[in-house]
Amino acid sequence: MHSILELQDIIEKAITKVQYPSHPARLYEPISYIMSLGGKRIRPVLLLLSSELFNDDVTIAIEGALAIETFHNFTLIHDDIMDNAPIRRGKDTVHVKWGVNNAILSGDAMMVEANRHLTRLDTPVLKDVLTCFNDTASGVCEGQQLDMEFEQRTDVSIEEYISMIRLKTAVLVGGCMKIGAIIGGAGKADADLLYDFGVNFGLAFQLQDDILDVYGDPLKFGKQVGGDIISNKQTYLLLKLKELVNTEDLQTLENLSATADYQKKVAAVTALYNRYNIRELATAEMERRADIAFTSLDKVSISDDRKSELNLLARSLINREH
Amino acid sequence: MHSILELQDIIEKAITKVQYPSHPARLYEPISYIMSLGGKRIRPVLLLLSSELFNDDVTIAIEGALAIETFHNFTLIHDDIMDNAPIRRGKDTVHVKWGVNNAILSGDAMMVEANRHLTRLDTPVLKDVLTCFNDTASGVCEGQQLDMEFEQRTDVSIEEYISMIRLKTAVLVGGCMKIGAIIGGAGKADADLLYDFGVNFGLAFQLQDDILDVYGDPLKFGKQVGGDIISNKQTYLLLKLKELVNTEDLQTLENLSATADYQKKVAAVTALYNRYNIRELATAEMERRADIAFTSLDKVSISDDRKSELNLLARSLINREH
Repeated sequence: MHSILELQDIIEKAITKVQYPSHPARLYEPISYIMSLGGKRIRPVLLLLSSELFNDDVTIAIEGALAIETFHNFTLIHDDIMDNAPIRRGKDTVHVKWGVNNAILSGDAMMVEANRHLTRLDTPVLKDVLTCFNDTASGVCEGQQLDMEFEQRTDVSIEEYISMIRLKTAVLVGGCMKIGAIIGGAGKADADLLYDFGVNFGLAFQLQDDILDVYGDPLKFGKQVGGDIISNKQTYLLLKLKELVNTEDLQTLENLSATADYQKKVAAVTALYNRYNIRELATAEMERRADIAFTSLDKVSISDDRKSELNLLARSLINREH
Repeated sequence: MHSILELQDIIEKAITKVQYPSHPARLYEPISYIMSLGGKRIRPVLLLLSSELFNDDVTIAIEGALAIETFHNFTLIHDDIMDNAPIRRGKDTVHVKWGVNNAILSGDAMMVEANRHLTRLDTPVLKDVLTCFNDTASGVCEGQQLDMEFEQRTDVSIEEYISMIRLKTAVLVGGCMKIGAIIGGAGKADADLLYDFGVNFGLAFQLQDDILDVYGDPLKFGKQVGGDIISNKQTYLLLKLKELVNTEDLQTLENLSATADYQKKVAAVTALYNRYNIRELATAEMERRADIAFTSLDKVSISDDRKSELNLLARSLINREH
């Protein structure tokens, strides 16, 4: 069994080793660029950990891990176009650097590269892995579609929000766990339990993200605390507040949405969150999802000992401060 | 063995039977929309014909045919964004009807749907089919990239142009033939011969397209004759002319590129083509490629009798007037 750090290292080395064609340069350079921007590589690490639950040879799952990381980065390129985002991990986004048309096309080529990694897996697991991957990929597209639609709406319910983040974020985590399990040789029941673990863990992760955006330590968070408040993003916190506020506070909230003084806006919306105990309510929901996740993980028919690294990573991510 | 018309009918029925999810509507409606715009369904018909060379049961290849037609239509959605094209088959393009962001995302979801069709193929052929499909899909992306780059250049050579249309158009035809052959149970040598047939036939088809755009019968052609001349598109004809013209005629040609009087422009450029025998030269190149294609087809280790429908379709497409 490998440690998290060892698995991250295996993935970084594997990413560095992937050779894209040199021509046409403008098609493949953006792929190398975004793949080299780093990040914690959580998804491929989870995939390797899931495979390692069932098979000591982690190398059998590397092409699966590369596929997931490539697919994830493809969605970042296309999402950044749709969201008109200028910066990704502190660097220019692909469409800013190469133009929108190039970003569309390099994203498309990256989706092909992700499938190419999967196609190198062993034939006996290929069909099940691809079926899971395609279901996951459709889910991610559906989630992005709902996210775009929600930006135009003021009546999004918490239930709808959870459905959206489940598709946009959580099913990919579930897909990583299930694909890893299939490659490692798990039975169907265990693969499905790990999928459930991944989806619920993914939901908890996203809820923690929403909480940290408001309550994160500015020194540790790495991005601007209150960013979601400034952009009026409909997060779990905002939707929960809207569910609970009285008429007067709702009016205050609506007036704040147009405020150009960001410091005042963040302070005033945070004060409303505090008045209605939104942090505690969001944390309770996050913990509820985490509990469902860990209950599924407990049921996987493998010794607790083998699950320790996965448990450690998942708990550290849910309790993270940045 | 089925006739071309029967195969077209099989494909239309299969396309109609495909059910996309109803939600989110704006993600899946564009997919149904573009798939229902019709067209001759040449690529999936070729795939079925290729499979039928080796196996009488054409139903085994339908998911492959659907994958190819879905992939082809996905590239049309994204290409139309990049080319800023308002009309496709007489109807609004997807990005005009649903907006650019939706067109990007529905295209992405369509690529997943194409892979989903392939994943339903029998396990023994899955790896070879996917490998061919991924190589084909990368090629198409590379071709579109080169096409976009060529629009910004004035020094494109005929060799570069042929490389571009090989990738953008011809490898997909080759991919159809090879995938059909693999599904039908062909050996590697026959599958590769059919790939070569497809690529060279695809080149001949595109060259005929370039010729028809200038010399097509306006009553039969279905689109504006001279469209490529009006938009200064770098076709085989224009590049060949540039290779051959004297200094004076080159000056005339350059002056014409900015002419707003389209009728005059089409007449004058066509006159230059006529002066330098460009139609004959392009036709000779087209026939040379067609000969290479049919020589490969002849070598496929199947009786001539079984190849008759494929021969018929290919010859009718190359000799088409619209």
